[in-house]
Amino acid sequence: MGQNILENLLAFSIFTFLTIVKLHSNSLIQAIARITSKRFRHPDDAAFFGKQKGIADGVLAPLDQTGQRIWQNDIENIYPYLFVGVVFSLSGPMLMIQITYFTIFLLTRILHSVFLIFPKQPHRNIFYQGGNVITMVTILHTIWNLYHLSGISLV
Amino acid sequence: MGQNILENLLAFSIFTFLTIVKLHSNSLIQAIARITSKRFRHPDDAAFFGKQKGIADGVLAPLDQTGQRIWQNDIENIYPYLFVGVVFSLSGPMLMIQITYFTIFLLTRILHSVFLIFPKQPHRNIFYQGGNVITMVTILHTIWNLYHLSGISLV
Amino acid sequence: MGQNILENLLAFSIFTFLTIVKLHSNSLIQAIARITSKRFRHPDDAAFFGKQKGIADGVLAPLDQTGQRIWQNDIENIYPYLFVGVVFSLSGPMLMIQITYFTIFLLTRILHSVFLIFPKQPHRNIFYQGGNVITMVTILHTIWNLYHLSGISLV
Repeated sequence: MGQNILENLLAFSIFTFLTIVKLHSNSLIQAIARITSKRFRHPDDAAFFGKQKGIADGVLAPLDQTGQRIWQNDIENIYPYLFVGVVFSLSGPMLMIQITYFTIFLLTRILHSVFLIFPKQPHRNIFYQGGNVITMVTILHTIWNLYHLSGISLV
Repeated sequence: MGQNILENLLAFSIFTFLTIVKLHSNSLIQAIARITSKRFRHPDDAAFFGKQKGIADGVLAPLDQTGQRIWQNDIENIYPYLFVGVVFSLSGPMLMIQITYFTIFLLTRILHSVFLIFPKQPHRNIFYQGGNVITMVTILHTIWNLYHLSGISLV
Repeated sequence: MGQNILENLLAFSIFTFLTIVKLHSNSLIQAIARITSKRFRHPDDAAFFGKQKGIADGVLAPLDQTGQRIWQNDIENIYPYLFVGVVFSLSGPMLMIQITYFTIFLLTRILHSVFLIFPKQPHRNIFYQGGNVITMVTILHTIWNLYHLSGISLV
């Protein structure tokens, strides 16, 4: 692999690291919600983490539910972008363009989560759609790069 | 990377693009369900998108629930296939075989979703299992390719 | 690609295969739960798989719910690790280190699932956190490898 691709993979691995930190923060929100509300999903969690006062009656704390929705939305949006991100990195883009795309995407996802915790529309929807736009731009840019690199001719 | 791998990555990136279109169509189904039923998940969505008539009482429109199940099933099946797809592409398969696998997989997933919207068994199960079979074939083909390319000898 | 990377990709593809077997076992648990309890998610499933006695009233068998939680937890943890695994493999690590990381990670996930089926804390939490630690170690190791390979200098 060329020098350039290694830098692209380095940028992607740093982006993956930041993404995992973001995802772990979702789980942290849920852990805090459970411990402060003493409401757990599993009886064994309630017994262990809730000491004598833990409850596991199927009713979840509001913040726990919000954490669950953030997770679901991230799964539906961040994971597809990571697939796009791998193949975009392998298509050898300019490093500054790659870093710009990845940064904008991560910011849209963080702000989307913020506006799930502090509900506000149309703000949340704008960042949701913003993330979609960057996803589409990145994958189309990837196809463009690989089409030119592979030297395939359609005519 | 060789010329061949670039073509494989191009095929994978087009497949990823089509997959994202498929996943976005799931979200579109849910958006249509919410706007036509005026039933939303979040009070702020109900206020903003539902105008004065939006409801967010925890009861979701049937089509919204179906959209949610399509998403869940795609997350459980399409995402693993994309991981397989990346490494299969990097194993340098014949382009026609790669395109055949990817096309069959995408068709099984689209038809699985169709038979969730218009419930019908055993049709849905056949396409579900069909997707599983292609996933297994693709990953075993990948292992076979890389085993031969890497020149590792087990004896 | 060098010989070494091909071996790393082979190790990753075998890991992906084992992961898919693990994920399919989640679905198998749910299928067994549905057929033995005769409780299904969809009326058409109830009619087809449950013969005359299938029920689809929204109440799921406990083991079916456990299967759902195992899936959710795997989606939140295994998928991120597979992204890390791809880029770690491309960073050309020593094969033994790669196999060690992948094996430990897979074991933590299997044991986490076991302690969801047979609820026991703090055991489940220990394996959950163990998986997180390996994820962080692997991605940081990847960044380290690619940083050195790419020859970028920060000073």
